Amino acid sequence: MFESAEIGHSIDKETYEKAVIELREALLDAQFELKEQARFPVIILINGIEGAGKGETVKLLNEWMDPRLIQVESFLKPSDEELSRPAQWRFWRRLPPKGRISIFFGNWYSQMLHARVYGDIDDATLDAGGAAAERFERMLCDEGALLFKFWFHLSKKQLKTRLKALEKDPEHRWRLSELDWKQSETYDQFVRYGERLLRRTSRDYAPWYVVEGVDPRYRSLTVGRTLLEGLQAALDMQEKGPERLAHAAPLVASLDNRGLIASLDLSRTLGKDAYKQQLAREQERLAMLVRDKRFRRHSLIAVFEGNDAAGKGGAIRRVTESIDPRQYHIVPIAAPTEEERAQPYLWRFWRHIPARRQFTIFDRSWYGRVLVERVEGFCSEADWLRAYAEINDFEEQLVEFGIVVVKFWLAIDKNTQMERFKEREETSFKRYKITEEDWRNRDKWDLYIDAATDMVDRTSTEIAPWTLIEANDKRFARVKVLRTINDALEGAYKKDK
Amino acid sequence: MFESAEIGHSIDKETYEKAVIELREALLDAQFELKEQARFPVIILINGIEGAGKGETVKLLNEWMDPRLIQVESFLKPSDEELSRPAQWRFWRRLPPKGRISIFFGNWYSQMLHARVYGDIDDATLDAGGAAAERFERMLCDEGALLFKFWFHLSKKQLKTRLKALEKDPEHRWRLSELDWKQSETYDQFVRYGERLLRRTSRDYAPWYVVEGVDPRYRSLTVGRTLLEGLQAALDMQEKGPERLAHAAPLVASLDNRGLIASLDLSRTLGKDAYKQQLAREQERLAMLVRDKRFRRHSLIAVFEGNDAAGKGGAIRRVTESIDPRQYHIVPIAAPTEEERAQPYLWRFWRHIPARRQFTIFDRSWYGRVLVERVEGFCSEADWLRAYAEINDFEEQLVEFGIVVVKFWLAIDKNTQMERFKEREETSFKRYKITEEDWRNRDKWDLYIDAATDMVDRTSTEIAPWTLIEANDKRFARVKVLRTINDALEGAYKKDK
Repeated sequence: MFESAEIGHSIDKETYEKAVIELREALLDAQFELKEQARFPVIILINGIEGAGKGETVKLLNEWMDPRLIQVESFLKPSDEELSRPAQWRFWRRLPPKGRISIFFGNWYSQMLHARVYGDIDDATLDAGGAAAERFERMLCDEGALLFKFWFHLSKKQLKTRLKALEKDPEHRWRLSELDWKQSETYDQFVRYGERLLRRTSRDYAPWYVVEGVDPRYRSLTVGRTLLEGLQAALDMQEKGPERLAHAAPLVASLDNRGLIASLDLSRTLGKDAYKQQLAREQERLAMLVRDKRFRRHSLIAVFEGNDAAGKGGAIRRVTESIDPRQYHIVPIAAPTEEERAQPYLWRFWRHIPARRQFTIFDRSWYGRVLVERVEGFCSEADWLRAYAEINDFEEQLVEFGIVVVKFWLAIDKNTQMERFKEREETSFKRYKITEEDWRNRDKWDLYIDAATDMVDRTSTEIAPWTLIEANDKRFARVKVLRTINDALEGAYKKDK
Repeated sequence: MFESAEIGHSIDKETYEKAVIELREALLDAQFELKEQARFPVIILINGIEGAGKGETVKLLNEWMDPRLIQVESFLKPSDEELSRPAQWRFWRRLPPKGRISIFFGNWYSQMLHARVYGDIDDATLDAGGAAAERFERMLCDEGALLFKFWFHLSKKQLKTRLKALEKDPEHRWRLSELDWKQSETYDQFVRYGERLLRRTSRDYAPWYVVEGVDPRYRSLTVGRTLLEGLQAALDMQEKGPERLAHAAPLVASLDNRGLIASLDLSRTLGKDAYKQQLAREQERLAMLVRDKRFRRHSLIAVFEGNDAAGKGGAIRRVTESIDPRQYHIVPIAAPTEEERAQPYLWRFWRHIPARRQFTIFDRSWYGRVLVERVEGFCSEADWLRAYAEINDFEEQLVEFGIVVVKFWLAIDKNTQMERFKEREETSFKRYKITEEDWRNRDKWDLYIDAATDMVDRTSTEIAPWTLIEANDKRFARVKVLRTINDALEGAYKKDK
């Protein structure tokens, strides 16, 4: 979930300054219209890693907008009055009225996370807290509120650098919280539990936005733009009483055009000899791992998505070559059958879930909803927006049962695709592989990449992460796929102990 | 939640037979149209107390409808295949396609409840199961499914009679499940955990319907009618793709016109001397209880609702007479202020939540949404339908914090109201108490009673039960109110130990 927010997004000064002038003006306009319409309140939650620029961003927002119409609430130690009432009371009393904006700093999520990292509460209590937050936010949105949830992120390395800088600065040292961020363990736990909360509370009406905090210009512009777009969309909506707004913005903005997939180093290759050797080794390893008696407590699902002609078929063949055909199934996903169309979306995947000791390969998958169906408009915006949470729920069930889930995005660049398309047209036995549709999809290249990046950001979780495969070189791709599967299986066996 | 399903609803044979002829025809018609439209599937969950007629009702539904289009699924012991996959798999594989109906017997709820009563899982796991069920059902409904959840209920006494009859009947003895229902403890636990699940999983798109199981004619007709009305409403909806249906039917049907409130014995009275004596005793008791040092861990909320002129004001005065004015607040709820209208609905009640050791009396309350706002159309159907779950969430937070919540419905009959209205008009110092609005409300007497009955059914929970007050006799009413408050406080103190 945080991968896209660790790649070092940045914006140069000139671009930034130009953008900010327009942004401020537009934000002020939106804020004024919000006040005039007075149809709904706006609540902004600020969470995330210490030192990732939460405070600075809030300060900046206050400067950019009309401070009379925006209120910053920081929920530090509860007062006596607050302690003598149910926990939610302190948030209710600070809710902004219709037409106003409040920034909630140190909100319900901060408290849960803090308590969990400190060991004051256990996983079950954290989950119960997440469920309560979800109910609270659903009610707020049903009542018309517009909710933004920002998670400011830093990689571990970025955090260390930042902490050092903060320590030297006497003016800012007070900002460090009680959590001892210098401990590597604190970071790991915070991120792990944070991801768990984000996964469970990201809903179409109130998704999380993850912001990489390392570059001040990038993070400020990202937050400002996200707010502006959400606000404008809500203001433009027809007046039909309280209504939920769907957030269609991507989870991690890439204002600098540096998405996770676009940032891949596609020049990676593997020589012929090294390939032969490594392929043989990984294939043998896989054969051993699925015959291992520890596989009895597990099963394996591998999901293959990627650009057209990225080499999914070839990679899948290398995976299955060394395994007994009775142990694996390949499920190619095309247009749904009549029977499948008469069922809820996930039905046609549930029916192929492997039993214990079985291995199922999905050649394209349930991610079709947020890729092709989203881009081609085969389903409504509401449908693909709610699909992320449904898919995370689904995969959580799989993993909790002991199924090992590996997900691959095979990425090639546009030129490589063109070469392969042409080769397919020219080779008689490959001609069936290329259709009109492939050419049409190619025209929507950027839309597909945006959708895929957003998909990875929203569904790459600790329990079922995405692996991006640099697939310009087929040999490199095939070995990386096999090795990832093997590592995942071994990792699962180790955890069993 | 189950009170309305313990009053001995019944339908006479003649009425039943006439009704069934029409019902069957209409059900067959609806079923045919469902098949022709093939727009959505229908899933019927059957749960509840052993011996309350679950099996018989399912059998009857099968007879009434076209058996080729309805499928009964009973999820008993999972198969080997099912055990080797995540738990939800067995339900997915049995989902009906669009246009068909499935009855799920022994579904996810039965399994959770069984496990909890057996002690295989704890409260936290039951709650997590409830939350997972909620997510699953929300997804099904988002995908267009129409979901009916029936809970068949029997009082403890009714169950005992029924068990005896079953035991004597060798043909039916096999039906008794593994749970030992002869043990009084089993019943209590099943009902307690059942209520907890119902409270948390009753949502506007998939509410529970509670059916009193003692009279076969009443329960069959109730289930049949509920299905028919829901089906027809869904079939009549515009074709705009998958869409959630809101269930507006009451939680407990009263086909025999015997609602909980209508069944009250309003002739109960209290003589003048007994009144004086008992009032003094209860007032003294209350004075002691709120001065008790154990009150430091609690606070008290009393909610007063009821017919116009039912004597709320008088009852409230008798409650407060013996207490230090610094310790209580009376919050009269009228139309919301401008400030309150700019906030989510529950905001204006949250702001008056008492601190520890305080006592707040709400003269009318958050239940306005499902009473006056529902009847007068001041809010949309969707708004009042979701309010039940929101209110249950809200009160759960209060009670979990240690607040004692008592809720009164003061009931009088129509004649008594007329007498009091006239008296008010004739007595100069009472004239301010009667307005045009009171007369208008009186014209909607039946609608208000229906709304109030449904409210009690949906929000009378183990943690915050409603107390119905027979208020034709003011003396009787006032003493019962005071005694209920005192008993609730004492009960809370006892639990502290």
